[in-house]
Amino acid sequence: MNEASVIAMIARHFPPRPQLYPLGIGDDTAILKAQLGLDLLTCDCMCEGVHFDFRWMGWGDVAYRCLSANISDIAAMGGEPGPFVLSLALPGHSPSVQDLEALFGGLRACVDEHHCQDLYLLGGDTVRSSGGLMLSITLLGRAPSGGAVRRSTARLGDKLVVFRPLGGAALGLELLRRGLHGRAPLFEREHRRPMAETSLGVALGQSGLLSAMMDLSDGLVQDLERLSAASGLRLRLEVDAIPRHPLLTSLCQELGLDERDFVLAGGEDYTLVATVPVEGLEALGVLLRREGREAYVIGEAFALGEGVDVGAFERRGFEHFDSA
Amino acid sequence: MNEASVIAMIARHFPPRPQLYPLGIGDDTAILKAQLGLDLLTCDCMCEGVHFDFRWMGWGDVAYRCLSANISDIAAMGGEPGPFVLSLALPGHSPSVQDLEALFGGLRACVDEHHCQDLYLLGGDTVRSSGGLMLSITLLGRAPSGGAVRRSTARLGDKLVVFRPLGGAALGLELLRRGLHGRAPLFEREHRRPMAETSLGVALGQSGLLSAMMDLSDGLVQDLERLSAASGLRLRLEVDAIPRHPLLTSLCQELGLDERDFVLAGGEDYTLVATVPVEGLEALGVLLRREGREAYVIGEAFALGEGVDVGAFERRGFEHFDSA
Repeated sequence: MNEASVIAMIARHFPPRPQLYPLGIGDDTAILKAQLGLDLLTCDCMCEGVHFDFRWMGWGDVAYRCLSANISDIAAMGGEPGPFVLSLALPGHSPSVQDLEALFGGLRACVDEHHCQDLYLLGGDTVRSSGGLMLSITLLGRAPSGGAVRRSTARLGDKLVVFRPLGGAALGLELLRRGLHGRAPLFEREHRRPMAETSLGVALGQSGLLSAMMDLSDGLVQDLERLSAASGLRLRLEVDAIPRHPLLTSLCQELGLDERDFVLAGGEDYTLVATVPVEGLEALGVLLRREGREAYVIGEAFALGEGVDVGAFERRGFEHFDSA
Repeated sequence: MNEASVIAMIARHFPPRPQLYPLGIGDDTAILKAQLGLDLLTCDCMCEGVHFDFRWMGWGDVAYRCLSANISDIAAMGGEPGPFVLSLALPGHSPSVQDLEALFGGLRACVDEHHCQDLYLLGGDTVRSSGGLMLSITLLGRAPSGGAVRRSTARLGDKLVVFRPLGGAALGLELLRRGLHGRAPLFEREHRRPMAETSLGVALGQSGLLSAMMDLSDGLVQDLERLSAASGLRLRLEVDAIPRHPLLTSLCQELGLDERDFVLAGGEDYTLVATVPVEGLEALGVLLRREGREAYVIGEAFALGEGVDVGAFERRGFEHFDSA
């Protein structure tokens, strides 16, 4: 396949939408309607052998997860996702038409599952990689009218809140690595095709009840260290209060694994963690029940300073870029 | 160096500019002022061993060229460049502090040389690559008030116009490969740090004199084949009319090279090619002389259909992504 046939395939999966975007794929740049009011901008990059392994992920899964990671970043600001572009570096040898069909089909599936009108592929760059497959997606988004929810604005005394059980994606990967396919399809799916929290993020962003928010991508403790550093506050986690799926607990017991490894440092949860002033917790509970969701208080910002207190747990988060 | 220290280095080269961009590096996403009216979106990706070779390019050159390629795409729509994000996949072994300083210094130099207020790094993603260095930049831009200049809108009878001598970047690379460093610093610079045509692109876009435009990145003939396909017009090139630097001619003669290889298929010129209705040529000449530039008519759109007539020349353009 040459570049032109890859572009033609992309245009089949993402045909023009001129009423929303005057120009998509096929020129030097895409053209947006300036009045769309897109004011959030993020990008995420995933490399074969570092961020994914084709033994456990298909081409469609890889694309789906890369887009989810971006959508999750927009959700973490309380925003709605908009158009995106894709840089695709393809290994010289392997990509068949089927591989690429799967890749763009995975992207399209992720787009369709979010039901966000503006979420759409508008262009990109397809090149040859000297190594494995590499994807980089850049996504625009729209902040809530009250402003984006940052991670630097937590306040002393605020509670730490998460919204669903953690650690499933990491356990899913561990099960796949151990050849235990099919033991927990839920967790395999969380690893392969994590669903970013768009509607939750938008509801939280519009509520005005949060002081700060971020998404969980590298593991709870490591991500909270960033929130701590940005806010200048020390955080204390109540490890037993962190929600986990009963199946995660039972599988970890069966396999002799420490479930705290998955819950605290698993990574790739692609859900949200927020700080909430105590006086807003009740209203938050009401809001979430209306959305069919729950709030789990897992700790608090207890002092000025920096760091995450977690007891005796030895941190093993995912560091994207190791020391040279 | 870990991820946090890379991000800290980026923030030194691109400190916050809150009056223009409420939030840059350091959160889940960057925040733009929605009313900035940015309506162009492009991305370009470059991989070590495919798009650049560290034997001929430094880390700063690589970053400079990748940003130039993006700015060139915006210029090709007649637009001004705005904020950008960078995905950086770093080889596991090699990047020293000096390498990364050079990389961000090269980006910063490119930004500074364009004197465009909105052109600025706002964020990105830094990961570890399983292969060589990979950069992907996504750039926003602002179209001219009359609308972006597309490549699909050329009309029958229009003249093909370029604005500076072609082939220098490709000859620069050839000289470096032959160990002839210093023989033609001008061409080495065109290879390492090509200057995208921002002010020219904006002037052309505002003039309303063009029917279509695109930038030259993969070689004149290959790029014009895309314009031809998009416009549904056959193009004829007058090879002898294509401007080339006298030093390019003399070096090619001395080294036994065919200068047409460089002029027609060299690639990475990062200048512009436009189609201009005959009745607009005179006004275009006046406009360009005011900018201190020139217009070179190098052919025309002579028939309905598709293809580029170039005489006996055998095409050898740069195809980013070879057949699998």
